[in-house]
Amino acid sequence: MKLISSLSRTFFYSAMLASLSQLSLAAEPAANNVILIIGDGMDDQQITAARNYLHGAQGQTILDTLPIRSAVQVITVSNENPSQPIYVADSANSATAMATGNITSIGRISTSAKTDQDFTTIVELAQQKGLKTGLVTTASLTDATPAAFYSHVNMRGCEGPEQMVNFESYGDFVIDCHQDTQGLGGKGSISEQLANSNVDILLGGGKKFFKQAPEKNGQALSTAEIKTVLKLAKNNDFKIIKNLEEAKAIDKDEKVLGLFAKKHLPVRWQGTDGRVAEKPQYSFLHVFHRYLGSVTLPEVMKCEANPEFEKQQTPNLADMSKLALTRLDNPKGFFLMIESASIDKQSHKRNPCGHIGEAQQLFETVQVALDFAKQQGNTLVMITADHGQAAQIVPDGSLFSAFGAPIATPGLLARIETREGGVMAMNYATNEFSHEEHTGVNVPFFANKQVKDKAGVNLIKPMLKQTDVFNISKKHLGL
Amino acid sequence: MKLISSLSRTFFYSAMLASLSQLSLAAEPAANNVILIIGDGMDDQQITAARNYLHGAQGQTILDTLPIRSAVQVITVSNENPSQPIYVADSANSATAMATGNITSIGRISTSAKTDQDFTTIVELAQQKGLKTGLVTTASLTDATPAAFYSHVNMRGCEGPEQMVNFESYGDFVIDCHQDTQGLGGKGSISEQLANSNVDILLGGGKKFFKQAPEKNGQALSTAEIKTVLKLAKNNDFKIIKNLEEAKAIDKDEKVLGLFAKKHLPVRWQGTDGRVAEKPQYSFLHVFHRYLGSVTLPEVMKCEANPEFEKQQTPNLADMSKLALTRLDNPKGFFLMIESASIDKQSHKRNPCGHIGEAQQLFETVQVALDFAKQQGNTLVMITADHGQAAQIVPDGSLFSAFGAPIATPGLLARIETREGGVMAMNYATNEFSHEEHTGVNVPFFANKQVKDKAGVNLIKPMLKQTDVFNISKKHLGL
Repeated sequence: MKLISSLSRTFFYSAMLASLSQLSLAAEPAANNVILIIGDGMDDQQITAARNYLHGAQGQTILDTLPIRSAVQVITVSNENPSQPIYVADSANSATAMATGNITSIGRISTSAKTDQDFTTIVELAQQKGLKTGLVTTASLTDATPAAFYSHVNMRGCEGPEQMVNFESYGDFVIDCHQDTQGLGGKGSISEQLANSNVDILLGGGKKFFKQAPEKNGQALSTAEIKTVLKLAKNNDFKIIKNLEEAKAIDKDEKVLGLFAKKHLPVRWQGTDGRVAEKPQYSFLHVFHRYLGSVTLPEVMKCEANPEFEKQQTPNLADMSKLALTRLDNPKGFFLMIESASIDKQSHKRNPCGHIGEAQQLFETVQVALDFAKQQGNTLVMITADHGQAAQIVPDGSLFSAFGAPIATPGLLARIETREGGVMAMNYATNEFSHEEHTGVNVPFFANKQVKDKAGVNLIKPMLKQTDVFNISKKHLGL
Repeated sequence: MKLISSLSRTFFYSAMLASLSQLSLAAEPAANNVILIIGDGMDDQQITAARNYLHGAQGQTILDTLPIRSAVQVITVSNENPSQPIYVADSANSATAMATGNITSIGRISTSAKTDQDFTTIVELAQQKGLKTGLVTTASLTDATPAAFYSHVNMRGCEGPEQMVNFESYGDFVIDCHQDTQGLGGKGSISEQLANSNVDILLGGGKKFFKQAPEKNGQALSTAEIKTVLKLAKNNDFKIIKNLEEAKAIDKDEKVLGLFAKKHLPVRWQGTDGRVAEKPQYSFLHVFHRYLGSVTLPEVMKCEANPEFEKQQTPNLADMSKLALTRLDNPKGFFLMIESASIDKQSHKRNPCGHIGEAQQLFETVQVALDFAKQQGNTLVMITADHGQAAQIVPDGSLFSAFGAPIATPGLLARIETREGGVMAMNYATNEFSHEEHTGVNVPFFANKQVKDKAGVNLIKPMLKQTDVFNISKKHLGL
């Protein structure tokens, strides 16, 4: 009896303590935060390739362990006729959908198709309500995905003041955002808009666009003191860091800008001796008929460290994200977008080890975000891709090899020796240009928890539209 | 007061009636059924292409409206060394995983890699417990996917008695299952195993393999009366139907076999005038450098009815499925596998209208299954694919068209005018053989409800292995 009584007393006290602690939580609830992690071009082929290489065909990535999976429709419209569907997106229009909740046309940064009106971004909404905001990327901070969260221009190529008016990028392709120049009452180039922004932490690449002089277009608004966009950022109270360590000395309320590469950050991995996908080689007889002769597939390669990554002392995406989380954590909440950008860029370049290494960077970052969310209690972590990419896992050889004909891709092939000792063949065959195309497939989506609307209905449905990412963020942050 | 009192009495009676009806339900609960719908090769590219065409880029397929979405790892091993991973499956090994819960090597029908041992299938387990079973497909009933649910052979090609020993299918490719011949104590060819099976309803194609004489291999086991496999089936109490209508006259307890095509059923749609994907045509200058000259893409095509479908009076997959459900519905429960087989076969043949039409057949069938499940109350409907396919939605033109170079796929391209008036470009470029390759991507999975284990843990997790489809079926059916 004594024991039971003592037990019930213990139970009583713990129950009381529990309700007290709930009371104290109720008085000061954990802030609502959103961490949106974008794997650029990270479709299911990319995830499967990374899973096969890093964890084995029967293993799991951290994405596979998350409690919520959905898929996302990527929606694009024509700029000339916004009622006309376009079935393959680019990172500019897809990031605009996630950042603003609006559908637009290819190449646009948070502006409307045809009418070129500015859309309000989730970062701007969060700032209006006193929440902190951050953007972390392995690309230039002026690249399409991060740009769509803080800037508004006609064309994604308008990354710096020098790219604003009739800038001939390549051949016939002309980048022009003259209507966005400050001389004509616009907000200026992407790097200028970033320098003028109130984003609390910005980590990525893009020094090149910050070395340019602001507003070159006739009616200069810059003073003699502001010789570069970087100086403009400093004048706007950004503390510039050259490495992550330097942030420690900076007061948590200060804005931080870290530019760690001229343009995009070097990627972690490359193929053996820098090899990428290669053309299968046919024997002479193949000239006469496609079923004659023999074919030699590219040699198997391994993934190895990219020397540039070490040489440039490139910070890991996970470490940049950790720093951002440390600085953003505050009682009012925050919105943080993190992008592993070069899954896409390396797939464009037919470099499987490149994109697998950048998927690994994303997986590590998801772990950082989940650890933070677990400890903080009220952080929504969402992971998705912006569009599909060209790479496909194909048979090593052919399903039809028994027929004796020389069968190989008409495109470029890479054969990777995986850590579990298999050979994974990756095909890149959407074009014969220097860069592969995107694809129009719906993309995967993962989250650490559900978000409900006022009526208690799940907002993260099994199928989403890209604009829902904005709506879910907005709801969770109470904006 | 009178109103309130009357209301409370009504409430009391309805509550009593409700608990009475629960009691009666408890006494005779609805049987546990499983409907497994397989879209052969129906990866996310296939679903997106069908969504774009049938419902528009912003529309939804019936799959997108289901409450549960997951993804499935497709796992294959080497036949020579079963500890070695193979990163791209075929329908035989992937159907074996779903039908038996075991991983095997390419081409095997419910037998083990290297050791060639028979795996017990979900159909066999269900039959042992007195449940009804059915298989419905748009392919030959002897094709790999349905075959893995009722038969056990060394190679998927052993579809009829004539294909069992040293059958030279094409060139150097030899089909041989001599160890499975009945003369050597085996179970015979796939069509013979089907004729000897106790599957309650079998609807699909494959007449060709039922016209052959059973067991040709020396020690004939067939009697003089059994001149064909079809006769063998009749002797084993199968009622043969030539069209769905004929089934009405057959007692519900009889076994039904319907063979509606020589091999596979014709598909519903084709491209304009039977066109499939075509080679982009370059101008002369392109010979000198890939960035010179111009390229002409194939003409836009529409999807139209395939005359063969009408001519052969081909039943719709949804109608076959309705018939199967009517006959299988019974107090002990059933397992029904339904396959839309030619999503894969038409993608192999670079026929986008072909695979979109067969995806539409699958969507209609999902509606039939959901309607049945809603009315019956305890039916698990699962929809998944067996492996990825080659087709990719690519930009119509190129993301890089502004550069002025002639950019096009090195493979074959089809440009489809969608119902909403867009142009969707589909790329087929995994090889230059007569048939495209499969791909190794993880595949989508959908269900109408969750299944829990004894401890209440969800069995349909956000990421599954293909073998889990067997385990989930087994659990829901209580096998």
